[in-house]
Amino acid sequence: MTSNGVTNGLTNGSSAAPTSRFDPNFTSHVIKTMGPNMTPRNREVLSSLIRHLHDFAREVELTNDEWMAGVHFVNFIGQTSTKTRNEAHRISDVLGLESLVDEIANKIIAEGDIDPTSSSILGPFWSPNAPFRDNGSTIIQNPNPKGRVCKMHGTITDLLTGKPIPGAVFDIWQASANGKYDFQDPENQTPNNLRGKFRADENGKYWFYCYHPTAYSLPTDGPAYQLLTLMDRHPMRPAHIHIMVTHPEFRGCTTQLYPKDDPWLETDTVFAVKDDLVVDFKPLKGDDKAVLELEYNVVLSPKGYKGKTF
Amino acid sequence: MTSNGVTNGLTNGSSAAPTSRFDPNFTSHVIKTMGPNMTPRNREVLSSLIRHLHDFAREVELTNDEWMAGVHFVNFIGQTSTKTRNEAHRISDVLGLESLVDEIANKIIAEGDIDPTSSSILGPFWSPNAPFRDNGSTIIQNPNPKGRVCKMHGTITDLLTGKPIPGAVFDIWQASANGKYDFQDPENQTPNNLRGKFRADENGKYWFYCYHPTAYSLPTDGPAYQLLTLMDRHPMRPAHIHIMVTHPEFRGCTTQLYPKDDPWLETDTVFAVKDDLVVDFKPLKGDDKAVLELEYNVVLSPKGYKGKTF
Repeated sequence: MTSNGVTNGLTNGSSAAPTSRFDPNFTSHVIKTMGPNMTPRNREVLSSLIRHLHDFAREVELTNDEWMAGVHFVNFIGQTSTKTRNEAHRISDVLGLESLVDEIANKIIAEGDIDPTSSSILGPFWSPNAPFRDNGSTIIQNPNPKGRVCKMHGTITDLLTGKPIPGAVFDIWQASANGKYDFQDPENQTPNNLRGKFRADENGKYWFYCYHPTAYSLPTDGPAYQLLTLMDRHPMRPAHIHIMVTHPEFRGCTTQLYPKDDPWLETDTVFAVKDDLVVDFKPLKGDDKAVLELEYNVVLSPKGYKGKTF
Repeated sequence: MTSNGVTNGLTNGSSAAPTSRFDPNFTSHVIKTMGPNMTPRNREVLSSLIRHLHDFAREVELTNDEWMAGVHFVNFIGQTSTKTRNEAHRISDVLGLESLVDEIANKIIAEGDIDPTSSSILGPFWSPNAPFRDNGSTIIQNPNPKGRVCKMHGTITDLLTGKPIPGAVFDIWQASANGKYDFQDPENQTPNNLRGKFRADENGKYWFYCYHPTAYSLPTDGPAYQLLTLMDRHPMRPAHIHIMVTHPEFRGCTTQLYPKDDPWLETDTVFAVKDDLVVDFKPLKGDDKAVLELEYNVVLSPKGYKGKTF
């Protein structure tokens, strides 16, 4: 026998035979409890969130103990976060959510043969205060004995015309050879070590000296590492260089570049690797400032360009 | 143009034309990153969680700002929780999750005409220390001038045989007429005020004095209230009496009873109301200890009884 509808049943016009022991109207009842005074977007997002949360629980028949473990875990996330540590951000990265949100916001598939340079996640280490530097200079303020200096250069071009984009700004930031950014390593690094902005010349070209990047681990205390351990996953990010390329007339591109021989490419803890971001560092001869060379060309789409629609 | 599979593409054998600008292999790639050394159940639960989280984000095309608002909200939950305040629990209640988990764990639909008494959520105020009291006594230790005393009584019977269950334990707890439980109100209430366990007599009957219950609000500071406000929902729980009925040979029933004229029944903040839990308090004459009467009969199923299967 099932209920005759004094309460939840009031939200239900259906009289079909039940196909599950679960109340078929429970989720819609929860959603309909939302009042008229909310924005349509909030209603859309929260309705979908509730529907997926409930579908998840029914699909796996979530037990009381599992639910309570989840409750404790959510509290632990916030209790681990501080002004300089955002553990909820990290948990969402480990679950692939930041990378997915980046794809939703930024992915463009061109109608032609060439796509714009892929976007990737910003991460927590970008700084708005990086100084402009001259092409040909270095971002290495505090040399690290293990650092391998690389001459990085390339051309920034327009997706539609193939022409260079003079004046485009190429902003780069990277960890030092110890796997730490300036923020994290005040004993060894001065502010803006391994950060800099470069303005492309009249041919759309940029060039400067930086380090071959170094792989590093996410923090191995706290809930993100606990979750990684539960999933039998490692905490490593592949070595990477962050870049953000902008120009007033083009859609900006925030992304990361990865050495093709890095062992963590396929299992990046935050799922931020994409095919066109995997690059080839080559030995450099005849330049006493560097031992490696990296050419990376960036393709930007004009503002408003939508690409292929599906 | 789409990627040719140096990285994510390695996880993909499909060559069908894309039907979305989103990488069709992203979610399965995240799931496949989990290693061999996890329990099958953890793999099942976390795979489903990741799939639903990603489906949610793609379905609503979650923006970067919305994702970041969610990140801050999750941190806020843990930062509001203390040893005596579990805000993640409360958030999951407001989203209907605890009530759903309770249904998954406890709902039985009988093959006959009568179902066992519906389960409902335990909530945070049950105490393992409630004393046994004699049938006919009162759970009111600290009278509240606004309290309306009720004589509550009923019979506890076996779903399958209809026979009474002598010795079944009827554990009751409720807030006082100010909407607060003993834990929350040490100035006005001594420990175990409005709590007690009663043992059913040889006819399966219990009887005692309690209060007609009082509706109350969830805390109106913190993330749960912020979420309720975003959803244009009120923070009220309908008036209710908590009960937990147990016997070694029967499946225990933890549930809540609600006066039928309560204005919050259909929009209970935690979605814990079910049809057979809505009850009728009647005026009582001829008993100088009480002004109201509530008869509530409880039906338990034997341990191991599964009910109708779908």
